[in-house]
Amino acid sequence: MSSHYTLADLVLRFGGTVQGDAQTQVSQIASLLQADEQELSFLTNEKLRGQLASSRAAAFILAPNMADATDKPRIISANPYAYFARVSALFNPPPESEPGIGPGAIVHPTAQLGADVRIASNAVIERDVVIGEGARVGAGAVIGAGTVIGNQALIYANVTIYHRCVIGDRVILHSGCVIGSDGFGLALEAGRWIKIPQIGRVVIGDDVEIGANTTVDRGALDDTLIHDGVKLDNLIQIAHNVHIGAHTAIAACAGIAGSAHIGAHCTLGGASMIFGHIEIADHVNISTNTLITKSLPKAGTYTSATPFVEHSVWLKNSVHMRHLDSMAKRLRALEKKLEAQEKD
Amino acid sequence: MSSHYTLADLVLRFGGTVQGDAQTQVSQIASLLQADEQELSFLTNEKLRGQLASSRAAAFILAPNMADATDKPRIISANPYAYFARVSALFNPPPESEPGIGPGAIVHPTAQLGADVRIASNAVIERDVVIGEGARVGAGAVIGAGTVIGNQALIYANVTIYHRCVIGDRVILHSGCVIGSDGFGLALEAGRWIKIPQIGRVVIGDDVEIGANTTVDRGALDDTLIHDGVKLDNLIQIAHNVHIGAHTAIAACAGIAGSAHIGAHCTLGGASMIFGHIEIADHVNISTNTLITKSLPKAGTYTSATPFVEHSVWLKNSVHMRHLDSMAKRLRALEKKLEAQEKD
Amino acid sequence: MSSHYTLADLVLRFGGTVQGDAQTQVSQIASLLQADEQELSFLTNEKLRGQLASSRAAAFILAPNMADATDKPRIISANPYAYFARVSALFNPPPESEPGIGPGAIVHPTAQLGADVRIASNAVIERDVVIGEGARVGAGAVIGAGTVIGNQALIYANVTIYHRCVIGDRVILHSGCVIGSDGFGLALEAGRWIKIPQIGRVVIGDDVEIGANTTVDRGALDDTLIHDGVKLDNLIQIAHNVHIGAHTAIAACAGIAGSAHIGAHCTLGGASMIFGHIEIADHVNISTNTLITKSLPKAGTYTSATPFVEHSVWLKNSVHMRHLDSMAKRLRALEKKLEAQEKD
Repeated sequence: MSSHYTLADLVLRFGGTVQGDAQTQVSQIASLLQADEQELSFLTNEKLRGQLASSRAAAFILAPNMADATDKPRIISANPYAYFARVSALFNPPPESEPGIGPGAIVHPTAQLGADVRIASNAVIERDVVIGEGARVGAGAVIGAGTVIGNQALIYANVTIYHRCVIGDRVILHSGCVIGSDGFGLALEAGRWIKIPQIGRVVIGDDVEIGANTTVDRGALDDTLIHDGVKLDNLIQIAHNVHIGAHTAIAACAGIAGSAHIGAHCTLGGASMIFGHIEIADHVNISTNTLITKSLPKAGTYTSATPFVEHSVWLKNSVHMRHLDSMAKRLRALEKKLEAQEKD
Repeated sequence: MSSHYTLADLVLRFGGTVQGDAQTQVSQIASLLQADEQELSFLTNEKLRGQLASSRAAAFILAPNMADATDKPRIISANPYAYFARVSALFNPPPESEPGIGPGAIVHPTAQLGADVRIASNAVIERDVVIGEGARVGAGAVIGAGTVIGNQALIYANVTIYHRCVIGDRVILHSGCVIGSDGFGLALEAGRWIKIPQIGRVVIGDDVEIGANTTVDRGALDDTLIHDGVKLDNLIQIAHNVHIGAHTAIAACAGIAGSAHIGAHCTLGGASMIFGHIEIADHVNISTNTLITKSLPKAGTYTSATPFVEHSVWLKNSVHMRHLDSMAKRLRALEKKLEAQEKD
Repeated sequence: MSSHYTLADLVLRFGGTVQGDAQTQVSQIASLLQADEQELSFLTNEKLRGQLASSRAAAFILAPNMADATDKPRIISANPYAYFARVSALFNPPPESEPGIGPGAIVHPTAQLGADVRIASNAVIERDVVIGEGARVGAGAVIGAGTVIGNQALIYANVTIYHRCVIGDRVILHSGCVIGSDGFGLALEAGRWIKIPQIGRVVIGDDVEIGANTTVDRGALDDTLIHDGVKLDNLIQIAHNVHIGAHTAIAACAGIAGSAHIGAHCTLGGASMIFGHIEIADHVNISTNTLITKSLPKAGTYTSATPFVEHSVWLKNSVHMRHLDSMAKRLRALEKKLEAQEKD
């Protein structure tokens, strides 16, 4: 927490150029309004230029077109927001965990732990698990039999991973997320549901982050696949046999039904819902609260949300939503009458 | 994993008839495209007939009308998908758990455990719990005081069951699900919320399966009831005093508000939401993303989702949703004018 | 469970007046239909007056205008529902927990525990945690390093609280909820997401209750704030830097995006979704399934849900939702034609 870096140190690590005194020392990064005289701040939105003028920060990260907006020392970067992310990671590593295996943790004798693996108190590592170098498992987390966890993975407290899953390097799993639970596979027979065993796995690539209480079901016969660099927010449902392409980001409360394949570099808004067995192309953006019912073969932005209004207005309008077809027919009938008049 | 069965063995267990060599051995079940020469596959959709021809599988499960679609050995069944489910369960039992009580598990001395109960590492079984024969409790799961769990129940890791609940035979509870938390019962007094103690229970019938991170609240005064054979997917909210009728299936991200009574043999789509204090008849189907605001006394399918479009199109259309009442009035005014013209 | 109180005892504690025999003893509170001859019941809805007549209850809680609706002993209160809540809390305290520190619980030697703190089996209390007097931590719960928990807080089993959070007095956290997980902060660079460290905290006021499997993310730079008396139901997502004003109640499955500020005394319906970076005034009510995309500076009720219909009707109507702009233009064209006719 008390580490200090000069602006010269930072550009050596992360690129960019310094204007003003490159020996200026900073000890933390903060927003324009919160930064104190020993901290670095950043401007990512020209509308906040007024805050720049009044900020107490020692120095700033600015885009080239804002290079002259202050006289204080500054780092010029083409992407100040990404630069901020890197500097912040330098000042703010993940919370320290105790080395070794904590009290109460149960590690099966067949498990293989890489160098510097840290297992917190009361975690459970089942038979034949393999955990890569430098990975950390939080308190109360449970890693099912035969699962493989990559190097430097960060598994927070009370995560559950079922048997035989594969988790890539540097993956971050937040508390309460569940990886590898059974997909919702049922066959109907005489009015009763027969469970279909879910014998696929979940395979998660490198640099994936999965939010708190998100669920990723294992495949029915084949695997559920989350590719490299995917970022999932909290409380998301990923059903069995879904594929999520690399570097796609999904906001909280979204749901992806079984066997949907989402492309790479997509963004899905909060509470968006995706039907099963459809294909979504790369570079698709889905808006918040939008339901996608068909494949989307073309990049673009798609939306289905209904605009909100005051409830009294909604009461008047919503009744007509049940009668749009009748309105359309009445409109057509009027057009025909007028066309007929015009012909007369 | 290395068990083998002949087709004759399978029809002896599960019915159906064999065409071709009944002594053909199979060692696993797989999709048409993935099956190898020692595996059984199945056809549930006539559109996949092309895959049948090219499949390497040793044998197939087929419906009677497809009996001649291959020359390879085959089992003929009226419901190939249900047949597949049963065969798959034979080849793929749930993951083995260690017998007895695992290290670090805390079992209160007053708890009663049936024969062959298996309690995994670091699970907690509180005072006066009763667990039926052959039931399994996963690592880190917590079973609250006085709860009763049926025979052969399968409670996965990190499940939480509160005090005094009742869980039927063969129930499966997936990781992170919470059974018996307090319902959202509040009384307003002078602008502040007073908590209403939730003193009912959750009572779950036989053969119910509940998905990862789904929550089922205990009743306020009476009980929350989940009847036999109900199947709940992941991340579903079941509020206090809800009743869910037998053999109803609910997809992920759905929410059922307090005291709603859902009939038997219903299906509720993903992210469907059901108002409180309403009654839904047996054999109702609710579509994905649909909000049900009133009782549904008749079987049928009900929908309220809004269709998606490209965002640029949505921008043009959505503005009119706020003005439907005005459009309807203007339409009526035009009709009256034309009617008046016609009378002239 | 076997405690008895006279009506006189109750009005001494909670106010109101008795009509009839004030020495009538009651041993529990129950609904009109379920109450037996030793129980107290209550009427909060005049429509249930018929149930009052047939109820077996020993006594009732009634509003002043219903004081004469029965001859049995009764407590008259201006707010029978709030009165019921208080009486029920007297008869039904939270489930007892064992005193002291349970077997298998791991409490870091630097943690400070107030008087009568109860830590259940296999819970984990990390470095530098401070827990106030009379607080209870359930089995398997994990409290991260440096977190401070108020007096009489009730943390249920398998809750996870990350490092450095602040939890107020008498807060109730239900199982599976996650407090202080990282917010979804990402910077895009060359098609890849760079994680932005989340270095703020979650700060929760007094008398807050948070439901099962709800997630509250820590702030990116500043803190996420949940003010006094807020009540959150199950499976709710609270993103980073959200503020929720005092005594606001939010129903299950809702989601609040990053940096949204919700006022005090609001109610948000189930599955409501709130955009990020907006401000919602005090005393706003958001309907179930409603998406709020802009700031709401005025108290009131706001709605965007789409009404449901039978699926066959929906099929006919929904197609027109994609063509509302064209319908509006055709309507305007007709109006112009008729206006032109009238001018002629």
